[in-house]
Amino acid sequence: MEGWVSLQKTLDYLREIDAGLFVIADAKRGDIGNTSRMYARTFFESMDFDAVTVAPYMGKDSVEPFLGYDGKWVIMLALTSNAGADDFQFMEDKESKERLFEKVLKKGTEWGSVDKMMFVAGATRSEMLTDLRKIVPDHFLLVPGVGAQGGSLQEVSKYGMNKQCGLLVNSSRGIIFADSGNNFAEVAGEKARQIQAEMAEILEKSGLI
Amino acid sequence: MEGWVSLQKTLDYLREIDAGLFVIADAKRGDIGNTSRMYARTFFESMDFDAVTVAPYMGKDSVEPFLGYDGKWVIMLALTSNAGADDFQFMEDKESKERLFEKVLKKGTEWGSVDKMMFVAGATRSEMLTDLRKIVPDHFLLVPGVGAQGGSLQEVSKYGMNKQCGLLVNSSRGIIFADSGNNFAEVAGEKARQIQAEMAEILEKSGLI
Repeated sequence: MEGWVSLQKTLDYLREIDAGLFVIADAKRGDIGNTSRMYARTFFESMDFDAVTVAPYMGKDSVEPFLGYDGKWVIMLALTSNAGADDFQFMEDKESKERLFEKVLKKGTEWGSVDKMMFVAGATRSEMLTDLRKIVPDHFLLVPGVGAQGGSLQEVSKYGMNKQCGLLVNSSRGIIFADSGNNFAEVAGEKARQIQAEMAEILEKSGLI
Repeated sequence: MEGWVSLQKTLDYLREIDAGLFVIADAKRGDIGNTSRMYARTFFESMDFDAVTVAPYMGKDSVEPFLGYDGKWVIMLALTSNAGADDFQFMEDKESKERLFEKVLKKGTEWGSVDKMMFVAGATRSEMLTDLRKIVPDHFLLVPGVGAQGGSLQEVSKYGMNKQCGLLVNSSRGIIFADSGNNFAEVAGEKARQIQAEMAEILEKSGLI
């Protein structure tokens, strides 16, 4: 139970220090429509997150309920950063020759517009971002896997950036597990600043800021 | 927040009335290994559920952490009961000609033995159970979709039963939403008894009880 109390506390704290922060519930939900509606209500009404990650396996009616909220975002798993991504996501369709993650992207663009839907694309497979951008040139991509999982921010930017940038790059463990001792706040802060500085440099070079 | 408190209360209540009840967290989790380990700990250690449902999209390392608990079960989504199952689960592999749900079943048998792993197979596609049984003749199948979603217990048994029965048939909304008034307990109890009686008859006819 403590986990859920901490989640609400963390969210309250984030809103307190900056009401405009974009906060994502990386919950990877996906269930029959009736249950997804309840999950959407929990994350978007009870808890007021800005976005929630969803899993595509159960298809349209498992994702759609999350799309019914003005100003909220749905971030659907497409190509994930973990080793297990190889098990199913690269499976090729007999007829269309599309890989599963490409089918997911296509369906996703039918279900949610560029101002409602993003896709997860792991930083550990940055060279694949070129293929993803062929299907979703304008959608935002949420890119986990920089940091603890070994993805490179330079590579991600090279292959995944579009004219508006279009990338939301995330490092979690690289920051929150940066130090387990008394210096945690300092070390974590330093790691976060490092990544942000690296991002700023890339954006500047690309003429985006 | 109330939802999580209710979940623990419901679980406590179930254990109180029958400590031997088999209780499933139909949570459909699936995340990178590190996060799945935390989910497994929540459902199996903090909360002591007997089984948890998991989503296959992220592959082996997203499922494996749930398999490391003696006496606990992992129930992986294969062919779900909702309309959205058509979006990806029937996609056919270019080389093996297997459909996605069949690939999931095959991988699942590699990851978890018959006494650790079950698969979700929706009652609304009962004729497909014959195809599933070719790949998983001995594994338990969790069959949702009887009741509110329109699946038939007779059909499910006809196509999905194996020599040990091998079916865990579930009706949720058909029971818990049977009546919204003061007679809820009575009507829900009656619905549950009806399904159980129908199941008993089928088991008797099959010589299983």
